[in-house]
Amino acid sequence: MSDTTTTAGVAAGTVTATTGRAMSDQAAGPAPDMLAWTCPAPLRDQSRVVMGHGGGGALSAELVEQVFAPAFGGPELSSTTDAAALELGGARLAFSTDSFVVRPLFFPGGSIGDLAVNGTVNDLAMSGAQAVYLSCGFILEEGVPIDVVTRVADTLGAAARTAGVHVVTGDTKVVEAGHGDGVYVNTSGIGLIPDGVDLRPQRVVPGDVVIVSGPIGVHGVAIMSVREGLEFGVEIESDCAALNGLVEAMLAVTTDLHVLRDPTRGGLAASLNEIATASGTGVVLQERAVPVPDAVANACAILGLDPMYVANEGKLVAFVPRERAEEVLAAMRAHPLGAGAAVIGETVAEHPGMVVARTGLGGTRVVDMPLGEQLPRIC
Amino acid sequence: MSDTTTTAGVAAGTVTATTGRAMSDQAAGPAPDMLAWTCPAPLRDQSRVVMGHGGGGALSAELVEQVFAPAFGGPELSSTTDAAALELGGARLAFSTDSFVVRPLFFPGGSIGDLAVNGTVNDLAMSGAQAVYLSCGFILEEGVPIDVVTRVADTLGAAARTAGVHVVTGDTKVVEAGHGDGVYVNTSGIGLIPDGVDLRPQRVVPGDVVIVSGPIGVHGVAIMSVREGLEFGVEIESDCAALNGLVEAMLAVTTDLHVLRDPTRGGLAASLNEIATASGTGVVLQERAVPVPDAVANACAILGLDPMYVANEGKLVAFVPRERAEEVLAAMRAHPLGAGAAVIGETVAEHPGMVVARTGLGGTRVVDMPLGEQLPRIC
Repeated sequence: MSDTTTTAGVAAGTVTATTGRAMSDQAAGPAPDMLAWTCPAPLRDQSRVVMGHGGGGALSAELVEQVFAPAFGGPELSSTTDAAALELGGARLAFSTDSFVVRPLFFPGGSIGDLAVNGTVNDLAMSGAQAVYLSCGFILEEGVPIDVVTRVADTLGAAARTAGVHVVTGDTKVVEAGHGDGVYVNTSGIGLIPDGVDLRPQRVVPGDVVIVSGPIGVHGVAIMSVREGLEFGVEIESDCAALNGLVEAMLAVTTDLHVLRDPTRGGLAASLNEIATASGTGVVLQERAVPVPDAVANACAILGLDPMYVANEGKLVAFVPRERAEEVLAAMRAHPLGAGAAVIGETVAEHPGMVVARTGLGGTRVVDMPLGEQLPRIC
Repeated sequence: MSDTTTTAGVAAGTVTATTGRAMSDQAAGPAPDMLAWTCPAPLRDQSRVVMGHGGGGALSAELVEQVFAPAFGGPELSSTTDAAALELGGARLAFSTDSFVVRPLFFPGGSIGDLAVNGTVNDLAMSGAQAVYLSCGFILEEGVPIDVVTRVADTLGAAARTAGVHVVTGDTKVVEAGHGDGVYVNTSGIGLIPDGVDLRPQRVVPGDVVIVSGPIGVHGVAIMSVREGLEFGVEIESDCAALNGLVEAMLAVTTDLHVLRDPTRGGLAASLNEIATASGTGVVLQERAVPVPDAVANACAILGLDPMYVANEGKLVAFVPRERAEEVLAAMRAHPLGAGAAVIGETVAEHPGMVVARTGLGGTRVVDMPLGEQLPRIC
C-alpha cells in the first residue's frame, strides 16, 4: 500500500478527531469529563437506524445477525456471502439482490444504472455463477424529470448488454417528493453455477494466496470527489465494471478457487475480515503490495480516509490454492479487468479470524473490520 | 357490482371535481379561460414523474413501453405479465420483482412485511409457479427505530413461513433522514413452473369464463381508511394473503387455465383491460356479479372511488376454458382463500381489447384502463 495511506482504520480515526476537538475545548473551559465524551462513530447499541447500518461493516452484519436472521433467516441466508447458492429444478443457481441509492446518480466513469447491473452481476460472479437474468425495481421520487429516468434506464441497458445479461422483469413505484432521492434501483439476479465450482469462505485453508484484481479505492473516491465538489488535480473516474468475464477466465484455469469477493461497501478491509472470520484462518497482508493509485492515495490522505476501507465496484479479491496461484494471476493479468492484479498476502493458521498488515517499515498492524462506513451511499 | 359503485373511472371523476371548483371561482372573478385550465389528473405528456406513473394504469404501462423497454427490454420483458417465464439449466423458472413503499407500514390485517412476501409470491403464482426462494432488499431511512425494522422483519418472516417460501439473500441500504419513508422493501422471487402450465393472456379465447376469487377492494380501502383516519362504522381489515395454495388447487383441476392475474394497483379494471388488450378479445362483465363487500361499497361511495379500480392483494382473477369453469370454481370455493369465488363474466370476439360491464339496469358501460391511480402507495 502507498506510503500516503493512514495507518488507522476509520473508526479509530474518527475517535482521534473527536479527541482533538475536546482538547481544544479544554483550554476554554473546565477539565473534560471523560465519561461524558460522545463519539461520532456509529455506536453499536443504537435504538435507531444510523447510516453505518448500511455501510457493509460490523453494524450491517449485526443488523443481519440480530434482526433479519432471527426473523426470516434459514440455512441459506448468510451475512458473509453476496449470493445464495441454490438447487432448483435440477439446476445449480446463484441468486442475489442489491439496492442502489448512490448519490449523485451520474458520476465520472458511471451511473446508478451501471452500478445496478454490475453490482448484482458481480455478486453472482463471486459465487462463480454467470449472471443470466436480472430483475429491476425502480423507486422514483415524484417530480424527477423523465429525462433523468430515461438516462438511468439507458445506462442500465447499456451495462446489461456489456455484461451479457437480460433484464426480464421489473417494477416501478413512485413515492411523494421528499420521500426518495430521484431514483433508487433494486436489481436481483439469477445465474448458473458451473459444475465443480464451490466458492465459499469455509474452503479457505492456511497457505492460500490472496490476490486482488487491480488498484483499490477508485470507485469510492470518484463518487466522494464529485459529491463533495473536491478536486484532486486529476479527475478520478469510477472503475465500475462487470467482473463475470474475469471470473470466467479465472475458473478456466481451475474450478478450485476457494473464495472470491468484490470489496464494495467496507472496502477490502471488510471483505478480508469477513473471509478470515468465516474461514477461521488468519490473513497476512503485505501492505506495500496492495495497489493504490497515487490519485486515490492523495485524496485519501487529504480526507483522512484509509483506502483499505473505501468501496470498490469493479475489483475482486481471490483466495487461491498456492499451487495454482501463479497461473490464476497470469490469467487475470491477461484480462482487461485484471491487468493490475497483484498478490497482496496469504492465509495463515495463526491469529484465526484476524487480518494483519505488514507495513513497509517491517512492523505489523491489525486491519479491523469497519464498524460503519466512511462514504455514505456509494452504491 | 354494488349499486353504490360510481359509474366513472378515477380520471373522469377528478376532472369533474376540478370543473366544479372552477365554476365556483367563476362567480367571484372574470370568465374562466378554458385553455388555461389545469387538470389535477395525471397528464399523459409529463416531463416529470407523477404519482400516477406508479399507479399500475396507463401511465405505468407507458413508462415501461416508452422508457424501460427501449432501454433494456428484451422479448421476456413485458408490461402485461407479473413474472417472467424463463428456462435455465433445464428448469422452467418464474422470476418476479416488486418494491413495497406502502404507508403506513402497519395497517389493519397486515403490514409491509406481509405485502412484500405475498406480493411476490402472488406474482409468481399468476404464472402458475410455486414460489420457492425470495430475496429481500431493505432501504431504511436514517433514524427509523430498530424496533420498527424488527417488527417489519418479523412480519415478513411469518408471512414467508405461511407461504412456504425461503428468504435466501438480502441487502440493506440506509438513506439519510428525509430521503425515504421509514422502510422500503424490495422482494424478488424465483419459482418453478410445473410441466404443462402455460398461463398468459395470449391463450385467452372468446368464450372463456372470468372468475374472481372473492370480494374486491378490501385491501385498498383498508389502507386508505387507516391512512386518512377515516371510519366507516366497521374496521375494514386488509385481506392480503399468499395465493400459491389456491392456484395449486386450481391447477390440480386442470393445468389448462388460460391466464391468472392478481388485480393489485389499478384494481380489477386494470387487470381485465391488460388481458383484453394482450389477448385481443373483448371482456363482458356482469356488474352485479362482481363481489363487493358492503363496507367497501360504502367507503367507495363516500370517497368517490370505484371498487373496480381499488387495489387488492389476496385476490385473483382467472380466465378459464368454459368446459372446465364449473370444476375450477368448485375447487376455488373449497379453498379458504377462494370461498367467495364468483363467475363475473366472459370473453367475446366482439370489441377486442375492450372491457364492457352490463349494469344491473340492463345497460352497458365501458370499463376503462385507469390512467394513474386512485390510492397512492398501497403496496
